[in-house]
Amino acid sequence: MAARGRFITFEGTEGVGKSTQLQNAADTLTSLGIDVVVTREPGGTPMAEKIRELLLAPREEPVHETTELLLMFAARAQHLHNRILPALAAGKWVLCDRFTDATFAYQGGGRGVPEERIALLETLVQGDVRPDHVVLLDAPVETGMARAKKRGELDRFEQEELAFFQRIRDTYLARATAAPMQYHVVNAALPLAQVSESVTGLLSALARVDS
Amino acid sequence: MAARGRFITFEGTEGVGKSTQLQNAADTLTSLGIDVVVTREPGGTPMAEKIRELLLAPREEPVHETTELLLMFAARAQHLHNRILPALAAGKWVLCDRFTDATFAYQGGGRGVPEERIALLETLVQGDVRPDHVVLLDAPVETGMARAKKRGELDRFEQEELAFFQRIRDTYLARATAAPMQYHVVNAALPLAQVSESVTGLLSALARVDS
Repeated sequence: MAARGRFITFEGTEGVGKSTQLQNAADTLTSLGIDVVVTREPGGTPMAEKIRELLLAPREEPVHETTELLLMFAARAQHLHNRILPALAAGKWVLCDRFTDATFAYQGGGRGVPEERIALLETLVQGDVRPDHVVLLDAPVETGMARAKKRGELDRFEQEELAFFQRIRDTYLARATAAPMQYHVVNAALPLAQVSESVTGLLSALARVDS
Repeated sequence: MAARGRFITFEGTEGVGKSTQLQNAADTLTSLGIDVVVTREPGGTPMAEKIRELLLAPREEPVHETTELLLMFAARAQHLHNRILPALAAGKWVLCDRFTDATFAYQGGGRGVPEERIALLETLVQGDVRPDHVVLLDAPVETGMARAKKRGELDRFEQEELAFFQRIRDTYLARATAAPMQYHVVNAALPLAQVSESVTGLLSALARVDS
């Protein structure tokens, strides 16, 4: 029977290159013979993607912060039980674009939802499941926002102002500092080739340690 | 400034006549000069109705019980903050087709979600807001199911078996027994004219007491 796979999440503010580095990480692991599942939050299953659509669609009705928080965790429950946990049990490594750290950073640090409310839902939905490793792509907020804008129209979350993203970055960094063995902070302000080299090196090291 | 309105919910298993009696109650209050808002759960605002659609649509992907629970409360948060509380603050009486009692009955009693998980979300979403009165339309499960089937195709919830609905009825009755001043149990197995008379009498009495 296969050993349990590893659960690795990719976090960071807008425009830090998460998608690119997630693909880079997947390629690195695949080349080492590891069976990889790439997924994202909110989303990752057909129903969770429907919840994602509800969350991200611009709408006239104001979305209460508790509604947003519960929708995030509803999508997460579905994703965790129907996709992430079965993949891990089958020995696959799961690479996920955002997870609960993003909720602490965006809803908590960004929108001011008390950390205890998020922690309570984290336990309710995940029990004791946490990412084995969190790759935090970190860059000054101004750098990331400029890149995100180049990609086209900003969604509801991206329309928020810089101060909001600064609080998000600060929350991510504080969480990384508090758990240095779980979090791996990559300087995403460097040129792409260097960021990619860091991520490739990190994943190769994790594959050696963990397998 | 208007006095705060009253929050009255209508509960019961399938086919007990909730919609009919909710309209009857609204007509009774309106005829007494009370400003009434009629709404329903899950739903009650455009976004909450979208969440309702997600919950009720038959789908191939199994819906995890935690996902269902969080979607219910996400819709509730939206409904409460954007519709129910503003109406109550404006002095209106809010009549709601199902509320948190239904979550305790359907997800708790019916599907076996631990009561504490539901109570935790109730507090997270509602704080100390509870219905002023709960009208519980009670009938043997067999009676209600036969009526519901006559209305046409059953949705995902209605497709469950009789034992499931029996547990739901039992949960409703236990909650009513525990808080007899808040719950008003109406025998919905009686002929429609008698049920309607009971509800009209109840609402008229509440209007006298509360105004």
